[in-house]
Amino acid sequence: MLRTHTCGELRLSDVGKQATLSGWVQRTRDKGSVLWVDLRDRYGITQLIFEEGKTAQELLEKARSIGREFVIQAEGAVVERLSKNDKIATGEIELKVSKLTILNTAKTPPFTIEDDTDGGDELRMKYRYLDLRRTPVRESLQLRHKMAQQTRAYLDSQNFIEVETPVLIKSTPEGARDFVVPSRIHHGEFYALPQSPQTFKQLLMVSGFDRYYQIVKCFRDEDLRADRQPEFTQIDCEMAFVTQEDILNTFEGLIRHLFKSVKGLDFASVPRMNYDEAMRLYGSDKPDTRFDMKFVEITPLTRGKNFQAFDSAEIVVGINAKGCAEYTRKQIDELTEYVKRPQIGAKGLVYVQYRSDGTIKSSVDKFYSADDLKQWAEKFGAQPGDLMLILSGSTDAARKQLNELRLLMGEKLGLRDKNKFSSLWVTDFPLLEWNEETKRYHAMHHPFTSPKPEDIKLLDTDPGKVRANAYDMVINGTEVGGGSIRIHDRPTQQMMFNHLGFTEEEAKKQFGFLMEAFEFGAPPHGGIAFGFDRLCSIFGGADSIRDFIAFPKNNAGKDVMIDSPSPISQEQLDELALLVKQTKK
Amino acid sequence: MLRTHTCGELRLSDVGKQATLSGWVQRTRDKGSVLWVDLRDRYGITQLIFEEGKTAQELLEKARSIGREFVIQAEGAVVERLSKNDKIATGEIELKVSKLTILNTAKTPPFTIEDDTDGGDELRMKYRYLDLRRTPVRESLQLRHKMAQQTRAYLDSQNFIEVETPVLIKSTPEGARDFVVPSRIHHGEFYALPQSPQTFKQLLMVSGFDRYYQIVKCFRDEDLRADRQPEFTQIDCEMAFVTQEDILNTFEGLIRHLFKSVKGLDFASVPRMNYDEAMRLYGSDKPDTRFDMKFVEITPLTRGKNFQAFDSAEIVVGINAKGCAEYTRKQIDELTEYVKRPQIGAKGLVYVQYRSDGTIKSSVDKFYSADDLKQWAEKFGAQPGDLMLILSGSTDAARKQLNELRLLMGEKLGLRDKNKFSSLWVTDFPLLEWNEETKRYHAMHHPFTSPKPEDIKLLDTDPGKVRANAYDMVINGTEVGGGSIRIHDRPTQQMMFNHLGFTEEEAKKQFGFLMEAFEFGAPPHGGIAFGFDRLCSIFGGADSIRDFIAFPKNNAGKDVMIDSPSPISQEQLDELALLVKQTKK
Repeated sequence: MLRTHTCGELRLSDVGKQATLSGWVQRTRDKGSVLWVDLRDRYGITQLIFEEGKTAQELLEKARSIGREFVIQAEGAVVERLSKNDKIATGEIELKVSKLTILNTAKTPPFTIEDDTDGGDELRMKYRYLDLRRTPVRESLQLRHKMAQQTRAYLDSQNFIEVETPVLIKSTPEGARDFVVPSRIHHGEFYALPQSPQTFKQLLMVSGFDRYYQIVKCFRDEDLRADRQPEFTQIDCEMAFVTQEDILNTFEGLIRHLFKSVKGLDFASVPRMNYDEAMRLYGSDKPDTRFDMKFVEITPLTRGKNFQAFDSAEIVVGINAKGCAEYTRKQIDELTEYVKRPQIGAKGLVYVQYRSDGTIKSSVDKFYSADDLKQWAEKFGAQPGDLMLILSGSTDAARKQLNELRLLMGEKLGLRDKNKFSSLWVTDFPLLEWNEETKRYHAMHHPFTSPKPEDIKLLDTDPGKVRANAYDMVINGTEVGGGSIRIHDRPTQQMMFNHLGFTEEEAKKQFGFLMEAFEFGAPPHGGIAFGFDRLCSIFGGADSIRDFIAFPKNNAGKDVMIDSPSPISQEQLDELALLVKQTKK
Repeated sequence: MLRTHTCGELRLSDVGKQATLSGWVQRTRDKGSVLWVDLRDRYGITQLIFEEGKTAQELLEKARSIGREFVIQAEGAVVERLSKNDKIATGEIELKVSKLTILNTAKTPPFTIEDDTDGGDELRMKYRYLDLRRTPVRESLQLRHKMAQQTRAYLDSQNFIEVETPVLIKSTPEGARDFVVPSRIHHGEFYALPQSPQTFKQLLMVSGFDRYYQIVKCFRDEDLRADRQPEFTQIDCEMAFVTQEDILNTFEGLIRHLFKSVKGLDFASVPRMNYDEAMRLYGSDKPDTRFDMKFVEITPLTRGKNFQAFDSAEIVVGINAKGCAEYTRKQIDELTEYVKRPQIGAKGLVYVQYRSDGTIKSSVDKFYSADDLKQWAEKFGAQPGDLMLILSGSTDAARKQLNELRLLMGEKLGLRDKNKFSSLWVTDFPLLEWNEETKRYHAMHHPFTSPKPEDIKLLDTDPGKVRANAYDMVINGTEVGGGSIRIHDRPTQQMMFNHLGFTEEEAKKQFGFLMEAFEFGAPPHGGIAFGFDRLCSIFGGADSIRDFIAFPKNNAGKDVMIDSPSPISQEQLDELALLVKQTKK
C-alpha cells in the first residue's frame, strides 16, 4: 500500500509514530518559515508541515512546487500541533514530512473542490469526477452505500432472498415508455429494458421463493422533468402467503430499521391513513405529515348568506394558519395570487383573520356576520392570532388547490424541516383512474393489483369507486414506495385486462406467460418497491436526487461527461439492420 | 401470514402444538384408511396426515380432491410420526390436519417437479417458473444469494464502498460488440449497455473513492456459444494507492472468505504462478491445479536418433499418467484420435509404457533404446506402472495440445472432482496479443492495463514480449476473475492507444474524458472483476452457469418464457425514427 494510514486516522495517541499518507492536496499555506499542506482523502484531512531550517532544502522546494489537487505521498513523524483544530478529527496532530513523492500532478480544476463550490451545474456534470471529490457529494454517496447495506441487512434478517432478474426483457405498451434494445441476431426484434421487475418477481412467487428482494436498476423513457432520471434504482420486494397487514408490518420494519441504523432515529410505528381520508384531510395522496394544519370543511356553515361562490360550491374547505392573523394585505394578496396561478387554478381565496384582540376580519364581511365567522373559527379550532384560509368549488379541485396552499404555508412557517421525518402509510387506493386523454380507465398502480373483494361488484357499474389492495409509503410528503396485493388467478387477471381495454389477444400476447403461470399453482402474494434514489435524498435532507447518484444524466437525458447518447457507426447500424430516418432530426 | 410455520421448521419438540402451514402439494399417497400429503415450500417438506374415521369425512374428501402442485393451507396438530423419515429435517413429525383450504389449484405441470425431472431443456426454459420449484435449481439460487451476501460482507469489512455506475452509457468499438439503445429524444443517437463499468470505476478512483465495488450486470452482444449469456453479472472492484501485491492479497482474502463462509473450507493462501510458467508447466493460462501432471520437456534427450518428428520439433513435451501403463492398444488409440481431432490438431501421439515388471514399451522403439527411454522416464519421474504421453512440434502448439490431453487424462483418472477446489493466481500476462484477422496487436486484457515499467522499452521493438501488470484468478481450471494495475497518466495512456492503432482523434472521441481526468490528479490504482455467474457455478460444483441464473436466455439469446426479443410497434419505431431493413430478415 502506498500509505500506512488514511488522512482521517491519526490522533494524539499516534504522536511519535512514523506514518505514510497518500492523498490530494486540498491547499497549501506558505508562511515563509513554515509551509503547511492539507492532505485530503476519502477519510479526512491531515495537515503536513515543512519547516525552513528543519526540513531539507530540496524537500522544501519540492513541497513548494505542488499545487491544488496534486496527488502526493508523504512520509514522516506524527507530531502534536501547536495550534489545534477542533473542527477535524485529526486536528490535534500534524505530519512532519521527511519524504515527499509526487504521485501525479494536476491541472487547475475548472471549479473549486470545496463544500460550496463556484462551479455551475453544467460544469460540475462535465467534470463529475472532480465534483465527486467534494465532501457533500461524497457523503451523499456514502449515505447511499449505508442505506443499501442496511436495507440488505434487514431483508436478509427477514429471510428474503436476493434474486437478479433480467435486464433484457420484452416491451409491453402498458405503463410508461420502454427503452428498447435492437437484436443483432433476430433482425427487427427488440429487447426492452425493465420499468420494474414486476412480472418476474411475481413469477418468483409462483416458483416458491416466497420472499424476494433486489436493489435493481429500472428504466423509463419518459419525457424528462427536473430531477427525473431515465435510469433509477428500486428496492424491489415481493412476499407470498401474506396479507396486506403482513406487508405493511414488514416494510414499516424496514423503514424503522433504516431510520435507526442510518440516522439514529427511533420511530415506534408508521401511522396509517386510507386514501379517502388523506384526500379529505390533506387533499393529497402523499400528505406531508411533518406538520398538522389539516383541512376543515365548513360547507353547511356557509350556506344561505348570498355569497354566491360558497353557495354554489360543492365544498368550502380551509386551513388554519396558526399565528398568521397579522399577515398584511400584501402577504394575503400574495397567497391569493399563488392559488390563482394556472397550475393551481383556484378562482380566489377567502381569508378570516382572528385577531389577537378577539375581533374578526375577513374578505367576506359583506356576507357573514361576526357571529357567523366565530362559528367558523370554532370549527377550525382557531385561536386569537390565527388566520383561516378558505377555498371553495368542486370537491376534488378545491382539495388539490388547498393542498398546494397548505404546503406553501408549511414552508413559510418553517414546518417542513429537512431534518425532521414523518412517515405515513396511505392505503386503499382506487383501483382505476379515468384518463381524459384516452377516455378510458387505467390501472392506478398497475394491472396486476387486486381489487378489494367487496368492491369487485362495482367494476361494471362504478369502476372509479373500486378500491384496491394498494398502499404507498410516504415520507415528508414524498411517495417513497408503493405496492399492492396482486391478483394470483387467471380469471381475475383476465377480467382486469378486459376492464383496462385489452383484447384477449393483446393480453395473451403481452402477459400470457404470467396468466399461464397462475394456472400452475400460484400462491397469494403481494409486494412493494421503494424508489431508492429518492429515499436516499430524503434521508440526506436534500431536495434533489442528483447528488445521490454517482453519474447522473442531465435533464435532457444526456451524460455530458462521456457524451452519451451519441451516434454509432454505420457498421453497427448495418449489423442491426437499422436505418435512422432523417426527417425528424 | 397464511402460515404459523414453514414446511422446514417443525420438530419433535413441537409435538402437541397447533400449526398452520402453506405450500405446494409435492405428492399424495392414499392407502385408503390413511392419506398422506407431502407439503413443500422453500424451506422443506412436511407430511400432512388425514385418517379415515378420525378426520371429518368432508375434510377427507377435500384432501382427496387435491392434485400435485395445488397450493394449500393446512391447519392442525403436530404429532409424532409412527414411521420416521431420517432423510428430511421434519421427518419425525407430521401434521394431523383439522382444516384445509385450497389457496389455488394447479394444472398438471408439463414436467415433474423432482430433483431429476423428465423435462428437456427447452420445456424447462419455457416454464422456468416451474423449473425453479425444483430443489437443485432453488438451491443453486440460494447459493448465489449467499455468495452475494458474503462478497458484500467481506468487501464492506475492508472499507469498500458500493457505488452504482450507469447502465445507459456510450458505445466504444474497442472490445466486444455493444448492445445499443436508441434515444427517442436525440434521434440517430444511441446509448450503449456497459460491457463492464471499467472507465467509471477508474473515474471513481480519480474522485477519491479509493475502494469501490459493485455486483453489477454487464452486457456483451457476442455470437452466442453454449453457456454464454448476453447479460451476466460481475463482482467489480477497484482500489487506489495500491500495488499489485495489495490487490492480490485483498482478493485472495475475498476468495478465502467465500470458501470459508459458503463451503466451510479453509485455504491458507492462493498459490501464484506467472504466465510463462503456467504455459510451460500446463500449456494454459488457466491451469486446472486440482491435479499435478505437470509438463515435462525432454527435447534434448530425443535429438539425433533419426526420429524425424522429434528432431525437427521445436519442443518435445509430455505428461506422466500415473498408473496407466497397462492401457490397452485401444485405449491409447483413443487418446491419439483425441489429440488428432481438428480442434486440437496434433500430428500424432508418442507413448512410453513403463510396465510394472520394469520393462519399457513405446511407440518409438524403432528409434530409441531401452536405455534412452529409461532416461526419459527418469526425467518424467515415472515409476513402474506409469504411462508417458508425449507430443512435439512448435512450442505454443504442442503445449496447447498437451493441455487438452492433460485435462482429458485428469478427467479419466477422476482427478477433477467438482467438490475439490484449487485456486491459483496467474500473473504477468502479456500486454498485447497478435490478432491474425486484423493483423495488429490488441490489448490482451484491455487498453487501460499498465505495462511493466521495465518492459516499456520493448513496445517499439518486440511488442509481444511486453508484460503487463495483469493477473487472473483461476479456480479448477476456470478463469473466475481478472484485473490489472491501470495506467493513470495521460502520456502513457495515449501511447497505449497509439500502439493499439487508435488515431489521436479516435482515442480522444472515445476516451477523451478519461484521459482528461488523468490530468486532474489521478492516483495510482488497479482492480479486478470476477465473473459472478461462473464463480457461483464452480462453488455449486456445476458445469453450466444456467441454473445459477434465475431467468437465463437460451443459446440463441432468447428468453423463450416471455418470448423476447420480439417485434415492437410501428409507433415505437416511429418515435425512435428507426426503420428496420427487410433485406437481412
